[in-house]
Amino acid sequence: TQNCNALYAQAGGVTAVINSTAAGLIAAWRQQAPAGARLFGARDGIVGLLEERLVDLSALHEPELDMLGYSPSAALGTCRHVLQPEEHARLVAVLQRHRIGTVFYNGGGGAARACGDILAIAQAAGYPLNVVHVPKTIDNDIPDTDACPGFGSAAKYLATSLREASLDLAAMAGSSSKVFILETMGRYSGWLTAACGLAARHPGEGPHILLLPERPFDEERFLRRVRETVDRYGHCAVAASEGLTGANGELLHATGQRDAAGDRQLGGVAPWLAARVTARLGYKCHWSVADYLQRSARHLVSATDVAQARATGQAAVMIALAGERHFSPVIRRLADDPYRWDIVAAPLAVVTAPERRVPADFLTADGYQLSAAGRRYLAPLIVGEDYPPFRDGLPDYRIPAFTDISLSP
Amino acid sequence: TQNCNALYAQAGGVTAVINSTAAGLIAAWRQQAPAGARLFGARDGIVGLLEERLVDLSALHEPELDMLGYSPSAALGTCRHVLQPEEHARLVAVLQRHRIGTVFYNGGGGAARACGDILAIAQAAGYPLNVVHVPKTIDNDIPDTDACPGFGSAAKYLATSLREASLDLAAMAGSSSKVFILETMGRYSGWLTAACGLAARHPGEGPHILLLPERPFDEERFLRRVRETVDRYGHCAVAASEGLTGANGELLHATGQRDAAGDRQLGGVAPWLAARVTARLGYKCHWSVADYLQRSARHLVSATDVAQARATGQAAVMIALAGERHFSPVIRRLADDPYRWDIVAAPLAVVTAPERRVPADFLTADGYQLSAAGRRYLAPLIVGEDYPPFRDGLPDYRIPAFTDISLSP
Repeated sequence: TQNCNALYAQAGGVTAVINSTAAGLIAAWRQQAPAGARLFGARDGIVGLLEERLVDLSALHEPELDMLGYSPSAALGTCRHVLQPEEHARLVAVLQRHRIGTVFYNGGGGAARACGDILAIAQAAGYPLNVVHVPKTIDNDIPDTDACPGFGSAAKYLATSLREASLDLAAMAGSSSKVFILETMGRYSGWLTAACGLAARHPGEGPHILLLPERPFDEERFLRRVRETVDRYGHCAVAASEGLTGANGELLHATGQRDAAGDRQLGGVAPWLAARVTARLGYKCHWSVADYLQRSARHLVSATDVAQARATGQAAVMIALAGERHFSPVIRRLADDPYRWDIVAAPLAVVTAPERRVPADFLTADGYQLSAAGRRYLAPLIVGEDYPPFRDGLPDYRIPAFTDISLSP
Repeated sequence: TQNCNALYAQAGGVTAVINSTAAGLIAAWRQQAPAGARLFGARDGIVGLLEERLVDLSALHEPELDMLGYSPSAALGTCRHVLQPEEHARLVAVLQRHRIGTVFYNGGGGAARACGDILAIAQAAGYPLNVVHVPKTIDNDIPDTDACPGFGSAAKYLATSLREASLDLAAMAGSSSKVFILETMGRYSGWLTAACGLAARHPGEGPHILLLPERPFDEERFLRRVRETVDRYGHCAVAASEGLTGANGELLHATGQRDAAGDRQLGGVAPWLAARVTARLGYKCHWSVADYLQRSARHLVSATDVAQARATGQAAVMIALAGERHFSPVIRRLADDPYRWDIVAAPLAVVTAPERRVPADFLTADGYQLSAAGRRYLAPLIVGEDYPPFRDGLPDYRIPAFTDISLSP
């Protein structure tokens, strides 16, 4: 066909495994695409596409793809750009110039919305284009996929960290800090905080309290529970979402900064909570804001998540080459235990539906603990280890040297 | 001899490998001590000793010792207690009652000072006691040992995290956050921040700026360097010590809380720095305070550190049984590359010398980077991996069920 080439780009906040999706997608393209069909990469998402900063992904070979799959962050760079009317013609011109018939955009809710915009722009221009949203986000808030690639690894990292920090807290609670608060990302959904609940094997183990945006924060009730927990177990470990809100839906804490798409930058709820606990209950507190660490910790990923990330990239190519249009490769759960899943194509429009939040029945009635249903959903997503190679004591991450596409004038 | 029993206790902030020291010490005692000589453990350090909350460590068998060595935090609990005059008689009475002739106290500077106190108290009472300070601290500030067990693992964790977060930052710096700041522990010494410098393999890689307490913080100079780094590389990753001080030696940030020994609780310098960068340079910033995570991350330890922690515990017993008195088993470096070391006895008094800080020549002249000398010292300490067993996707940490000593009335 005329536009036999494809383009792959990455969007939004990174994950520890988005490059596994890239590696799977590139490998599948190399194996399955018609002879002569090229796969381009855009640097920095659609921003690089508009600026025609393209690289040749078809040129990557197996050792480089292996290396790519072991490196966290987004190898091509990302953006949170919203396409502006004055950019529409430029977008179509670049696609046309490189004979791009398929765009694979790998990201979360922002990328899904961008996919809708790209499709509408191409259709308005009469340019034939297949738009594929390849899901990725540690927030796990994309509907219609059992889990979002990236989430399982961040969840494993946070639950592990919470278990470790809880043991730390317990060791000195008798004469020192009695409360530890771990802040998680996840924006307006509490999936990552819920996943921290997996660290508790029995009632006395941390986390003792989960604070999700899905449940409005009630300071009196929270402080009462902290005191009860300290009285009972000697200490209290808390996991709290950055997007925690009050009774009227207002954010309890935000930095005041906004990102390129206008969304508020969150972060800082843990020190805020710690200050409340110390002021009201007199307990010495420790707190941690993991921030980027939780979404780039390739040294501690879920092998299940890695497999799903890679399979999502592979499936995107195979489903597109089979003729499906305007879709998203999503994970479908076939069984909980042992966990079985496959990948199917969901229509693009559905994936741009409102963000998915933690269902009420995944938490206990008081909202402070994971329920059996929540545990059943989350448990398989963090299973398995997949360590990167180390060199001189540190993970030997290497981003391949991509070959820039030279532009003929 | 009359007082053939020994006591082991843990003090201060935990590390990821202090329980390896415990496991090594217990195993050596079981193998080497005279028949009938018992090894007790005190819960919560010398607080538990005073309260006669003792357990029987001689009863632990190999599988439990293996498990112990894989678990972070301090299995027996710790404290930061300073012995008070009214407690002296009680201390001697408890030692006498259990025929304890040797005390192994496993901790940092506070434990070293406590060892001095315990020895003085015993000598004043005419009670024959051998006092052994077994070193441990992530701060690496104990003189006379090449490295402090616990430091290498925290260093590896932080350098890994910094490398991962720097890749994250680089991926979106074009259109979003340009600066990331990772706060490290270490109190008034900058060893952990210096170790973050190991993450940079070439000038463009993070961390671009190290901020240690050993160099007074100069805001103008720092901001200038941040801007230069962003201009040059597009982003800037910073590692900053919690104990950062200004030109007059004042702490830039402290929580206002104090621990049981009266020391100030630190933490919060990263958000403070981030606010300065945003206010003065206009860059969007991200920051992380790892806090407990860095000292309890048994999932990512240095195999070198684990070996040294275990060997330190074993040597404490073997040297004591050989007749040495009032000492500390310290690590002696024999060669840098390949790293070779052994353990020797240092006199107790020397170990209670002032804390060891990062030498000037371990940093570049501007103080912002690791020098070749600094790299030579630090590099071997983080080498090697030693993963704990996982179960259901999480590290399967298990603290042995210690047998309490029943007290005959």
